[in-house]
Amino acid sequence: MTPQDLNKPIHVLKFGGTSVATPELIRNAAQRIARRRDSGVHVVCVVSAMGDTTDRLLSLAREISTRPPSRELDVLLSAGEVQSMALLSMALNELGIAARSYTGQQGGIRTDAQHSEAKILSIDPDRVLEALNRDEVVVLAGFQGHDDRDEITTLGRGGSDTSAVAMAAALEAERCEILTDVSGVFTADPRIVEGARQISALGYDEMLEMANLGAKVLHGRSVELARRFEVSLIVASATADTAGTRISRKDDSMEKVEVRAVTDDRNVKKISLLSVPDTPGVAARIFGSLGEFGVNVRLIVQAQSHAGHNDITFVVPGDTPLDDKRLEQLVTEVGGENWIIDDRIALLNIIGEGISRAPGIAGTIFKILADQKINLDLISSSNLVITCVVPEGDLVRGTRALHEGLIETDA
Amino acid sequence: MTPQDLNKPIHVLKFGGTSVATPELIRNAAQRIARRRDSGVHVVCVVSAMGDTTDRLLSLAREISTRPPSRELDVLLSAGEVQSMALLSMALNELGIAARSYTGQQGGIRTDAQHSEAKILSIDPDRVLEALNRDEVVVLAGFQGHDDRDEITTLGRGGSDTSAVAMAAALEAERCEILTDVSGVFTADPRIVEGARQISALGYDEMLEMANLGAKVLHGRSVELARRFEVSLIVASATADTAGTRISRKDDSMEKVEVRAVTDDRNVKKISLLSVPDTPGVAARIFGSLGEFGVNVRLIVQAQSHAGHNDITFVVPGDTPLDDKRLEQLVTEVGGENWIIDDRIALLNIIGEGISRAPGIAGTIFKILADQKINLDLISSSNLVITCVVPEGDLVRGTRALHEGLIETDA
Repeated sequence: MTPQDLNKPIHVLKFGGTSVATPELIRNAAQRIARRRDSGVHVVCVVSAMGDTTDRLLSLAREISTRPPSRELDVLLSAGEVQSMALLSMALNELGIAARSYTGQQGGIRTDAQHSEAKILSIDPDRVLEALNRDEVVVLAGFQGHDDRDEITTLGRGGSDTSAVAMAAALEAERCEILTDVSGVFTADPRIVEGARQISALGYDEMLEMANLGAKVLHGRSVELARRFEVSLIVASATADTAGTRISRKDDSMEKVEVRAVTDDRNVKKISLLSVPDTPGVAARIFGSLGEFGVNVRLIVQAQSHAGHNDITFVVPGDTPLDDKRLEQLVTEVGGENWIIDDRIALLNIIGEGISRAPGIAGTIFKILADQKINLDLISSSNLVITCVVPEGDLVRGTRALHEGLIETDA
Repeated sequence: MTPQDLNKPIHVLKFGGTSVATPELIRNAAQRIARRRDSGVHVVCVVSAMGDTTDRLLSLAREISTRPPSRELDVLLSAGEVQSMALLSMALNELGIAARSYTGQQGGIRTDAQHSEAKILSIDPDRVLEALNRDEVVVLAGFQGHDDRDEITTLGRGGSDTSAVAMAAALEAERCEILTDVSGVFTADPRIVEGARQISALGYDEMLEMANLGAKVLHGRSVELARRFEVSLIVASATADTAGTRISRKDDSMEKVEVRAVTDDRNVKKISLLSVPDTPGVAARIFGSLGEFGVNVRLIVQAQSHAGHNDITFVVPGDTPLDDKRLEQLVTEVGGENWIIDDRIALLNIIGEGISRAPGIAGTIFKILADQKINLDLISSSNLVITCVVPEGDLVRGTRALHEGLIETDA
């Protein structure tokens, strides 16, 4: 059976944990699904575990074991989504809608064997398609899959979004909606910037940068997957029936360079390796070692300090387990002199397709920050984003000033 | 792979919900399993859901739906055992023991498609045997299986005991231990009868009668399965390392008829259908209808009331949904006159192989009750049990008197 055999388009709706945290919220979600179905489409819902269920399970595990095997952790966590999917299916049936819940394994989500951070290898949507063909609503457990030895796996951070996008791709769904506790993607964090506006449409690349740079609404992984399979992605509120933000392939006619958003990320730390020899292969050794530790490096700046030696500075997520001991090891390994860890910094990211080649934008950014007497520690830019490392204490002021100067004036 | 390929005997240990209700109890269970494994056997553990998890899940379901589909209820409840099996496996790994948890489906427990009360059709123990062959401890989710369309099923009341016994049979295990919050099977309820003693050994048939007649320690279904496959069953304390009660095929040399236990059951009601025609097939119609309602009839007495008409009285569990409306229907259907429901009665059961053909025992019973001025409402007897229906208010006094007269004197 293929998606073409169905007589109606498919919408995939993903409900996050806060959107199914209580029986009342689950009933609300069911009503929303019912309305969507009445509009003449097939609906596949993907659910996360209810509210704090995953945290509760993790804390039980910690009470029992200091280092639980990742295989068993995956088994444990998988129970959270199984619970919420069954309850959502019950709520749909209570509304008179034939619905059926499927685990990751039953839904045909096959992954590699990398427990706690499995990657989806393939989806066999047969069982889901058959259910849709019987005109049932399918409720699928997010975050989980199974490997080829029939072991339960979980997809790691952003896992349920990834499940939803992957299923949407496999089903050739008309759209994949990520329903959450915010109404869409904003030009800046509305808790910080009063004038922050919801963005109605974004390109995959812009969203990807935002996701990777502190916008918590979507995980980068799911955006990448959506881009690869051209899944039309929508981020919208789980409770209000408003339009949300549509993420799709960039309209080619849009030549105008535009600053789309200013994101802030204080959960980072800056690491400097001082006076490492300026010989070929040193950077490769440093970032090769970091890669083996699983460190996700955000930004790298290399500056010559004195003859034949460089200072190499990079920014990593704040919870990265890089401590003095590991850094000493690393510095010794590459023949450097010393290292510094600084966690009182933050990132300010200005995002927009083509931003770094647009004349004047970089200058405007630096002038705005200089007017605010904010010291720019490091700067990095790519086609889509200009990132400034600033003192953590200046983050809020800088975000507001940039948003006002670059976006609000542009309205 | 077959059980014969293994180099050590297999012990199946089943832990009930109260025995894994907290992380501390789970750690205790793991230590017990570790000691057993150190004694030179392979261990397969079967676990129930932690403490009140199943009740909590059921109450969530009730908040969402007045009549949740049984398929979805099974999916929901299955999450409880998945949680506890993962935690127990973690606790074992924490002790340095290679352990692996399996869902009903992964453990090869195939059932029919009767959701919420599925019957086990077959067990494919390959995956379990392979794990044992790698010298791992297997932790298996009790209570759940999967049907041939890979749907999740649950086994209904006493399900985890049934899982354990069935797995023990498939693995040709040396023994199957049901570890629980009591130390074994008693000659009477110790909360009622001070002199109640633990029974060291019982035949399957005796245990079956006790299970069906109010002894809550084991469900009849698992005892039946143990009898069919001659699984050596042990009921023992989950916390203390004491011997417990062994249930096995009756030693044929034991010709002496002995009263083994006195059980009491107040959770019953008596129903009388009055003046139904004494024509062939009437009883069949009555109990056929009751069977269709799913009613489990404990005891039937038919007495001629007047020419051509009989009163038919039977006892059913107290929570049986037989109300005046259904009884009116039933009485009308068979041409009877009226009906009576009486829930102020209780059952006193005296159990022992060959008891009803042993001269004098029935007489002794009636004399003991008469001395206590307890009115015998109905009496029924089989090879293994004599059941007396008495007023609920006389139950405790009757149980004590019978235990004293039939068992304590016999010590």
